[in-house]
Amino acid sequence: MAKCFPIENSSTVIGIGDDAAVIAPSQENVVTSTKVFMENVHFDLTYVPLCHLGYKMVTVVISDLLGMNAIPTQLTINIGVSNRFDLKAVNELLDGIEACCETAHVDVVGLDLSTSRRDLIVSLTAVGECEPARLVSRKGTAENELICVSGDFAAAYAGLLLLEREKKVFEVNPNMQPDFTGKDYLLRRQLKPEPRLDIVEALRREDILPTAMTNVCDGIAAAIMLICQASDKGCAIFEEKLPMTELAFTTLKDLDIVHTVAALNGGDDYELMFTIKQSDFEKIKNVDNVSIIGYIKEKEAGCHLITGDNCQVEIHAQGFAQK
Amino acid sequence: MAKCFPIENSSTVIGIGDDAAVIAPSQENVVTSTKVFMENVHFDLTYVPLCHLGYKMVTVVISDLLGMNAIPTQLTINIGVSNRFDLKAVNELLDGIEACCETAHVDVVGLDLSTSRRDLIVSLTAVGECEPARLVSRKGTAENELICVSGDFAAAYAGLLLLEREKKVFEVNPNMQPDFTGKDYLLRRQLKPEPRLDIVEALRREDILPTAMTNVCDGIAAAIMLICQASDKGCAIFEEKLPMTELAFTTLKDLDIVHTVAALNGGDDYELMFTIKQSDFEKIKNVDNVSIIGYIKEKEAGCHLITGDNCQVEIHAQGFAQK
Repeated sequence: MAKCFPIENSSTVIGIGDDAAVIAPSQENVVTSTKVFMENVHFDLTYVPLCHLGYKMVTVVISDLLGMNAIPTQLTINIGVSNRFDLKAVNELLDGIEACCETAHVDVVGLDLSTSRRDLIVSLTAVGECEPARLVSRKGTAENELICVSGDFAAAYAGLLLLEREKKVFEVNPNMQPDFTGKDYLLRRQLKPEPRLDIVEALRREDILPTAMTNVCDGIAAAIMLICQASDKGCAIFEEKLPMTELAFTTLKDLDIVHTVAALNGGDDYELMFTIKQSDFEKIKNVDNVSIIGYIKEKEAGCHLITGDNCQVEIHAQGFAQK
Repeated sequence: MAKCFPIENSSTVIGIGDDAAVIAPSQENVVTSTKVFMENVHFDLTYVPLCHLGYKMVTVVISDLLGMNAIPTQLTINIGVSNRFDLKAVNELLDGIEACCETAHVDVVGLDLSTSRRDLIVSLTAVGECEPARLVSRKGTAENELICVSGDFAAAYAGLLLLEREKKVFEVNPNMQPDFTGKDYLLRRQLKPEPRLDIVEALRREDILPTAMTNVCDGIAAAIMLICQASDKGCAIFEEKLPMTELAFTTLKDLDIVHTVAALNGGDDYELMFTIKQSDFEKIKNVDNVSIIGYIKEKEAGCHLITGDNCQVEIHAQGFAQK
């Protein structure tokens, strides 16, 4: 491989080129997560450019570290390719991986290429670090604490629906050119989501320690269920507080999808959900792109969505996968 | 998943069940390696039992940490399965993984299951730790230092040849039962190789610090080339010193394979190669299962095998993969 990855973090001791990567973490706790991405299971190359795919895969794997309030520092890459892919294709994928690593100040410290029978298979392992006092798990929230989420929801799902629709059109008529005018934001949210390192950094800056936290990969419903189950609590989420762009709202309406369902169960958002003490209410206002969407209740109250017309609807996690 | 993995190491802070695994390493350096194993590329389920496969995969991934003189401590597992595999099959695989983790005192701290289209795909990430002063890379050997290897070679390759031969017989006549009488050792070396944690521990006990080190996964030739290239050195390896069992020798002879070629390029041994100072010659005798097979020369001398009849043959790495 001609590709050369720059080393940015002082904690990287040995990168690519030995039996294993060596790290000297500057914090006491080391956090690690691995994701495997398989063609035609996790991604569809008919509409996903390889460089965007690489970028998104890094966002996905480091979001699990951010979901522990940790700072990602290193990444190792394993790629299985068949003869369907030439060196240029592999380099495009690596360029995308490198771009997201640059955004998140993550060093690539391992790269292994092997053969696959047909499909492209990528496995990424992210390593990060955290002061033990700042580490936040899914467990630990208490009654009356505020439920916060970063960013907005349902846009990535709307983007996926548009791409899938155009794919079907293309299959019938290969001469059709897709028209995504004005939908850029939705496509970007689906194809090239950003890792929310800014939120984890802002929480440190504002000295806010969440009481429970998780990466929202499979929709708001799945995420709040993970926190409530781990913490033995219930919750109320307000439908009107779910952050969503006008563009996602109108696009989903055109597609005959209920926007609340898309926000709760759409997935692919890679935003963060965390709970904070009420005493942090003033501080959290200083963190951009965070919305308070509800509060924690006792376990017996269950998990409910409070609709615009003040109905209580029980929340079930219908997102893609329960961890 | 009903499977529950015991936690043995005090460095494991959070295991399975949160966004990411959390480790508090007791040593300054953290070492990590990931391997992806794909059905019909890296393994063949027609003759590999799932529990042996699980065991071997752990040996493969932690051998890369041992090859840095580090102690493996944690493992995360990602499995992609199709509907060809039932829960029993997945559990057999996990049992094998758990058995090797128990042998090597490694905690399983992450488990992700996802869908694959058809083939079984497993990605394992091993994490280990090492005092910086005991960390050994491929680089660092000097002229006249001794080249050591653990265990014996070519047995795993002989085992593979036997299994492949019986597979061909079976394809022609499915009623044929394979006869492996007396070949147990060769099959075990191929199907269920042991991680050489004992060697890394013995080197610590005897206070021997290798000057360069690598995991021998693709044969002795590839391993010595990695060390010589990284260290800018040459070497002489003595054919007569290559450790091999009588069983491997006679089986390879029956199969018309030159045993030296099998030891140099056979692969799948997962033994360790390391170089030591001549002053450690007496100490290394106290470490069981280690053979001195040659010595390091200046770069200009090149890398040679000295045959039994005292000929010099240049060594090329013909093993499966150059890292």
